[in-house]
Amino acid sequence: MKKLGIVGGVAWPSTIDYYRAICRLSVAHHKGKSIRGPAPVPEMTIESLNINKSFSLRGSVANDDASWEAYDGYFRDALLRLERSGAEVAIIASSTPHNRFQSITRGIRIPVISIFDAVADNCAQLGITEMLILGTAPTMDMAVFSEVLARRGICGFSPARPEERAEIAALIAELYADRGEGAAQRILGVIEISFPKKGKMRAACLACTELPLAFPEMEQNTSAQIDEVLLINTTMIHAKAAFSAALQ
Amino acid sequence: MKKLGIVGGVAWPSTIDYYRAICRLSVAHHKGKSIRGPAPVPEMTIESLNINKSFSLRGSVANDDASWEAYDGYFRDALLRLERSGAEVAIIASSTPHNRFQSITRGIRIPVISIFDAVADNCAQLGITEMLILGTAPTMDMAVFSEVLARRGICGFSPARPEERAEIAALIAELYADRGEGAAQRILGVIEISFPKKGKMRAACLACTELPLAFPEMEQNTSAQIDEVLLINTTMIHAKAAFSAALQ
Repeated sequence: MKKLGIVGGVAWPSTIDYYRAICRLSVAHHKGKSIRGPAPVPEMTIESLNINKSFSLRGSVANDDASWEAYDGYFRDALLRLERSGAEVAIIASSTPHNRFQSITRGIRIPVISIFDAVADNCAQLGITEMLILGTAPTMDMAVFSEVLARRGICGFSPARPEERAEIAALIAELYADRGEGAAQRILGVIEISFPKKGKMRAACLACTELPLAFPEMEQNTSAQIDEVLLINTTMIHAKAAFSAALQ
Repeated sequence: MKKLGIVGGVAWPSTIDYYRAICRLSVAHHKGKSIRGPAPVPEMTIESLNINKSFSLRGSVANDDASWEAYDGYFRDALLRLERSGAEVAIIASSTPHNRFQSITRGIRIPVISIFDAVADNCAQLGITEMLILGTAPTMDMAVFSEVLARRGICGFSPARPEERAEIAALIAELYADRGEGAAQRILGVIEISFPKKGKMRAACLACTELPLAFPEMEQNTSAQIDEVLLINTTMIHAKAAFSAALQ
């Protein structure tokens, strides 16, 4: 198996989800094969960043390059360290930095699997044509993810009202802090309000890797249907893409 | 905070325990302080090894250096990568390699905190004078840990009968494989049989970082008293020592 590189820590609870998912996928992959000793797991290097620093380095949602320079460099340096440690393929275990993906991965020689690409491919396979995007302010306000989705014929949109946007930001902070009681119902409430048309299947993308923590029942699944809403677990889609790349 | 380096993956469930513990200690440390944004967490690099490979490279319990050369090199190379990635202090998140600690850390310039030293210091503070050691075959059969304990006036001993030693090995394998039902009771059973004298407080060291997984109630604690047995959680003692070093 190829060595995987993970830029993590933003935030750490979802880094655990990624790492556990990749390890479990490997244990499942080797099950039943005649192997001496414990099930093999790909070698990995995890560069766990300080989320307080990455948060403070965020640039403007207008997405002008100058304002994001220090942020991009913080992640690019982590990818360079992964490269030097022998990682053959890498992921950034967080949605937010993917809004700066092109700049962050500039000059990186190993392939870096984008969460936006992996999720858009998965949603296209599911036949989704319209999808609510729930994530941090950069993910909801910058057009990067919706452009990736549009290339697969999917119309991505964010909550229209500031109340729901603020609620999602609050939920992400609470889930990071190991709180988030009632988070699942609150997310479903935001989805209910944010869809203009009722009465048909709604797809909502948990496009911040903390949000799936609110739904422990979908921990191992790339998507789950709850109350007529198809929830997309971006963490698990991205982790599966990483493990597949390790096998190739 | 200093950057931490962790050699992990042996096995991955306890690497998660270490990483989660260090992150939670950092969140708790910063609680109530006026900080803008999410709670800071030390930067970390985790070199997660393939446990199947480390298992197959194990040398003889007679501890002759030649038989362990490849094993030692596998861990030493991981420490060198941590050093190159900027880690200022490192740990190996597993007991077994500590039986080869001197050889593994040869030539490493950053401090590497030994789990055996951290646990022995902690047990001496608790006033323990006699302690059952439960771990992998190398940890139970090689004299390294008991010598470290003896320097603090603690007499460490392993289960005398092959039945209990085999039971511990089976439990470690099951806990790694995410099974381990009834593991807590089975560990307590081994402890009951392995203590020659009854009727006084018994201390037992869970000296393989998988064993504390059997006692979810002690996840956050360095020790716990269960059924007149004082259980020592080596994972948590080692993780706390690492976080303290990051703060210094």
